[in-house]
Amino acid sequence: MLSTGSDTTINPGTAPLASPLLTTPCLLLDEPRLRANLVEMQAHLGRLSVGFRPHLKTAKSIDVARLAMTSTAGPATVSTLREAEYFAEGGVRDILYAVGIAPQKLDRIDAIRRRWDTTLTVLLDSVEQAEAVASWGARTGNLLPALIEIDADGHRSGVTPDDAQTILAIGRALGAALRGVLLHAGDSYGLDEPGALAEAAERERAAAVTAAAILRGGGLPCPVVSVGSTPTARWARDLSGVTEVRAGVFMFGDLFQAGIGSVAVENIALSVLATVIGHRRDRGWIITDAGWMALSRDRSTARQVVDQGYGLVCDLAGRPYPDLLVAEANQEHGILALRPGAGIDLPDLPVGARVRILPNHACATGAQHDRYHVLDGDGQVGAVWPRISGW
Amino acid sequence: MLSTGSDTTINPGTAPLASPLLTTPCLLLDEPRLRANLVEMQAHLGRLSVGFRPHLKTAKSIDVARLAMTSTAGPATVSTLREAEYFAEGGVRDILYAVGIAPQKLDRIDAIRRRWDTTLTVLLDSVEQAEAVASWGARTGNLLPALIEIDADGHRSGVTPDDAQTILAIGRALGAALRGVLLHAGDSYGLDEPGALAEAAERERAAAVTAAAILRGGGLPCPVVSVGSTPTARWARDLSGVTEVRAGVFMFGDLFQAGIGSVAVENIALSVLATVIGHRRDRGWIITDAGWMALSRDRSTARQVVDQGYGLVCDLAGRPYPDLLVAEANQEHGILALRPGAGIDLPDLPVGARVRILPNHACATGAQHDRYHVLDGDGQVGAVWPRISGW
Repeated sequence: MLSTGSDTTINPGTAPLASPLLTTPCLLLDEPRLRANLVEMQAHLGRLSVGFRPHLKTAKSIDVARLAMTSTAGPATVSTLREAEYFAEGGVRDILYAVGIAPQKLDRIDAIRRRWDTTLTVLLDSVEQAEAVASWGARTGNLLPALIEIDADGHRSGVTPDDAQTILAIGRALGAALRGVLLHAGDSYGLDEPGALAEAAERERAAAVTAAAILRGGGLPCPVVSVGSTPTARWARDLSGVTEVRAGVFMFGDLFQAGIGSVAVENIALSVLATVIGHRRDRGWIITDAGWMALSRDRSTARQVVDQGYGLVCDLAGRPYPDLLVAEANQEHGILALRPGAGIDLPDLPVGARVRILPNHACATGAQHDRYHVLDGDGQVGAVWPRISGW
Repeated sequence: MLSTGSDTTINPGTAPLASPLLTTPCLLLDEPRLRANLVEMQAHLGRLSVGFRPHLKTAKSIDVARLAMTSTAGPATVSTLREAEYFAEGGVRDILYAVGIAPQKLDRIDAIRRRWDTTLTVLLDSVEQAEAVASWGARTGNLLPALIEIDADGHRSGVTPDDAQTILAIGRALGAALRGVLLHAGDSYGLDEPGALAEAAERERAAAVTAAAILRGGGLPCPVVSVGSTPTARWARDLSGVTEVRAGVFMFGDLFQAGIGSVAVENIALSVLATVIGHRRDRGWIITDAGWMALSRDRSTARQVVDQGYGLVCDLAGRPYPDLLVAEANQEHGILALRPGAGIDLPDLPVGARVRILPNHACATGAQHDRYHVLDGDGQVGAVWPRISGW
């Protein structure tokens, strides 16, 4: 049997998407599309002569990581220590934990470094964190490499690049632990035009280079200048002064990134396989077994020009049905309906028929599942790749 | 060690919420509040002289199920076959799978029934499904009990109670498999006033009784008349003619149910423990390590009178800080901020401080975690209960 929801052992096999051996809802990953998305980004960053540290928070899979990384040992970016442990176990030796560090987590980080002989770099944006990292290092005799988070656009965390005093104070508090600066241009997620995205990428680059110059001007080292987000990575035209780019969601793509213009809908590699379980013909609804538990509660396209509901409905070959959305979702029910004013008929999908649903947000949808059913070039499930969750 | 994100074995122990042995973000379950919520519902339904078939889709935990069910063997309601397998393995012998059945799932259902000697009842709302169930039964020599889904309020699936012809046609197609009718008054989630909720409960009851009368009037049996939703269960004043009530989220409660009036905020038993990882004092932000991955993407209070952001922030004793919300969330970052116009100062929460966050939606937040850290009456974590996911 290829896989059922109750399997803890995952057995490889090959099955068409209509096979009852595939329990629905389940997560599909189109390997040719994944590989094409990776090749495109790697080639783009190669042209810009910058390193690539893929963010593995979207995939959370060692099988995907090995396709994405420039070597089986990394470098890589993670968002949780659970990911750090999992990828270190899988052979990754250069890991950046790109979420601000809390002192309580230092012992666990050190255990990861010692157990797997892995370089684990942490992130911080305050003198108090830097002092905690430095004093932990002095107490334990360890050097924990750290990056200073810089804020390019007011999106979230970080020191603004005009606050040279704080940047230098953090750098000095870190001492030998200082490795450089990191930025994430999160506000690029609100854009949808290539010119504006290229400008956001340039602002991210400029802020990074400014912050690095502040450290170097103060006599401090800054070997790492790390930037990244899928939209700015995709649209950056020049990355002079940057040493590495982080990006993750581009590997799979999703409808939100399509709305920004970071990926094309036809290149989205992730989808959810669902089975029709009923109809409300009086209301123009088709009911499936993929509710928000399978799709996630993410409705991020609601604030874009094209609202994709809880997802765009495709046939088993991955071609979207015209104007057919997951219009509403309950926990284990998805309600398919045409866009208002579509002026066409619902496709004929009887009970038991199957569809594929493109997600709003690959990170959120992926997180609802514990494995990928990997589609080969013939559209058959030829492998099952586990994925992790938790902290 | 009590628990870390990397443990696969869960070791019991006792720890205060500030202990570094508790890895954040993690899910907390206040057992005294859980028990009180259960006692209140059980007493209420006892006064209404109706059976109780708790919905286990919120908890997904055998430990919680054993507190909620009227016996260790059930009855119980589930939303996935993975839940059915898990609870059958845990000794539950009377399970209702309350999501419309697809023919591909019948063999798996039969395997559950045979392996654990469990009565598993399915749900359907069309003649084609009824014929599939009946012909599967004739082919395999099994009788699969089935309920007909009735739609009381246009919320989702089901035959409307004025469509006697379809109800009878389904009943006749089922033959000996027919067990009765089921309703879920999902539109009660849009209400917030006790009188209107009592009316919704009465409409649910009336539709159920009408549908049952149609079957009986046609000479068909209808021993089961099953209704349920947390709001209508809480506010029902009379359930004459109903045999059982299903409800689940009331056990934990959440901010959305508090907005409806189904639970009080001070009775919400579920929260997420988070650690402060940074500040943006210029913006009035406190950053924690509980982003939407830990809280879920659910923003259902956005359409209620009081929008609770991604959750309400409490101290470690579970008391809300005045007007402090998770105003925004990224994957692994939560941004705490005061409600606009709160006119007070942010609480003093340095890096490393911890808070508890009440969720918008217990079903969605719970699903992001694989275990409950169970708080005893002293506010200490005294047990760890696993929970399941998947299909």
